Amino acid sequence: MFSRFKPKNDLFYGLFTSSAQCLADGTKTLTGLLEPEPDFEGIARRMVDLEHDCDRITHEMFRTVNSSFITPFDRSDIYVLGSSLDDVMDHIEAATHLMALYGVTELPQHLREMIEILDTSASVTADAMPRLAGMKDLERYWIEINALENRADHTYRTFLAYLFDGHLDALTVMKLKDVADELEDAADSFEKVANIVETIVLKES
Amino acid sequence: MFSRFKPKNDLFYGLFTSSAQCLADGTKTLTGLLEPEPDFEGIARRMVDLEHDCDRITHEMFRTVNSSFITPFDRSDIYVLGSSLDDVMDHIEAATHLMALYGVTELPQHLREMIEILDTSASVTADAMPRLAGMKDLERYWIEINALENRADHTYRTFLAYLFDGHLDALTVMKLKDVADELEDAADSFEKVANIVETIVLKES
Amino acid sequence: MFSRFKPKNDLFYGLFTSSAQCLADGTKTLTGLLEPEPDFEGIARRMVDLEHDCDRITHEMFRTVNSSFITPFDRSDIYVLGSSLDDVMDHIEAATHLMALYGVTELPQHLREMIEILDTSASVTADAMPRLAGMKDLERYWIEINALENRADHTYRTFLAYLFDGHLDALTVMKLKDVADELEDAADSFEKVANIVETIVLKES
Repeated sequence: MFSRFKPKNDLFYGLFTSSAQCLADGTKTLTGLLEPEPDFEGIARRMVDLEHDCDRITHEMFRTVNSSFITPFDRSDIYVLGSSLDDVMDHIEAATHLMALYGVTELPQHLREMIEILDTSASVTADAMPRLAGMKDLERYWIEINALENRADHTYRTFLAYLFDGHLDALTVMKLKDVADELEDAADSFEKVANIVETIVLKES
Repeated sequence: MFSRFKPKNDLFYGLFTSSAQCLADGTKTLTGLLEPEPDFEGIARRMVDLEHDCDRITHEMFRTVNSSFITPFDRSDIYVLGSSLDDVMDHIEAATHLMALYGVTELPQHLREMIEILDTSASVTADAMPRLAGMKDLERYWIEINALENRADHTYRTFLAYLFDGHLDALTVMKLKDVADELEDAADSFEKVANIVETIVLKES
Repeated sequence: MFSRFKPKNDLFYGLFTSSAQCLADGTKTLTGLLEPEPDFEGIARRMVDLEHDCDRITHEMFRTVNSSFITPFDRSDIYVLGSSLDDVMDHIEAATHLMALYGVTELPQHLREMIEILDTSASVTADAMPRLAGMKDLERYWIEINALENRADHTYRTFLAYLFDGHLDALTVMKLKDVADELEDAADSFEKVANIVETIVLKES
């Protein structure tokens, strides 16, 4: 009877999946910084393009929710989910841009680890999104993301202790802290995505 | 039939317009900093008064939405719209206060440009608010605000590159970055106002 | 007739009270830093445990709201209230952690005052939460919290002027500013809790 609403729901799930896939492209591009002699400016430029791609998907998501009479779950949850996915990309783009802007030429070990954690978080998120349609097998996703965020947080704090131990000049500390803050914010946004998915699943169960 | 609800709606639209007008007064005051030998402390004091005026309007808006059975559009959208208008003023006030506090006596060119962008953003927003009642001719408003925010963001990032190029001492860099961050946050809040207006219009269309 | 819904409501009010009480435990622990020769690392470790306790209460709150057909007030208000209570603890924990991380051994007077303001804010909040059930005698609570936040804001800004007056090296300024930012954010989150309580009460009246 309500089958005519089905296609629209498929559209939503498709957009969540596309959005998460776009993030995975972003973190994959970010891992380009881990290779020997990375092209910081080239990667920053490519990230701007990717951010625009993700923006377009988020915009399409919001247009769809606004024009839909029935949505697969609460409208406000769709907004928060879409915005949080979008936030991840904003922080990754900002981190890359700051590295190019500040002329960072060598990435400290802690930041390399944070980039790897973000890339894993993106894969785990992109894997989970298609399962939203069936509302199952999602618990291990949010548990895994919470564990990854804890690791990112620990790495971030250890990096702060290293940054401020007195061996670097203040301007260098400020630049590297700016970059680390954006990476940490990206990890937080992945966790926010997982939290809202958990909320959606709990409401439906 | 529903004409008895009309007056309350007029009240809402009047409050949105007053709130945006209050912001325009704020950015106009901010442009006082662009004149020769500006009175930083006097402008900061005047801004505190303006912030209180805007606060009162926001508070009135929230009281009205809480006591209304029917609102012109979603309650939660009214909250987000009111809070985002309020956020602009908070950031402008903080920027001015920090300049007075840190003893900034000369405004770098990039910050002067950001202030001009904010003043234009406030005018564009104040012009658009009265059109909310008719829900039309608003598309050019949000397109213009997005373009202004992109310009502010570009100016901000160019300023960061200048700040960190090594010709300034670290404390000066920190002070000017604090001020620039608040101006950039003000531009972001103008964009958030435009985004929520776009959402409201799309829902109604 | 609706008495079968009562127990669930009691559960909600109990969880709000527990959450605020958990914060009061947090700020009480924070005041341990005001004693002579405080154990910064021990206090930071104890704060991590307290943060986990508070997290568990917030999580229980969200699970309860998700599984309830009827809630004592708007679901979205419960989320905002729960998240804001949780935010206070996050900022207090972060402040303590940064002090231990940065090797702060002596707390400047302004930060001591901010800690006392936070401890008072927590007591006032914990006192008010049980009154949510009756929806009365809450006005003096939010007025008091707003006054406390104004005092915290003033202390924070005076501290910034002191920090940047040139007598400290840049790295020390950055460390102490990081700590002050977290304490200021904690005071802001207490105000956000009070604002949402005001909104809830106004809606019901």
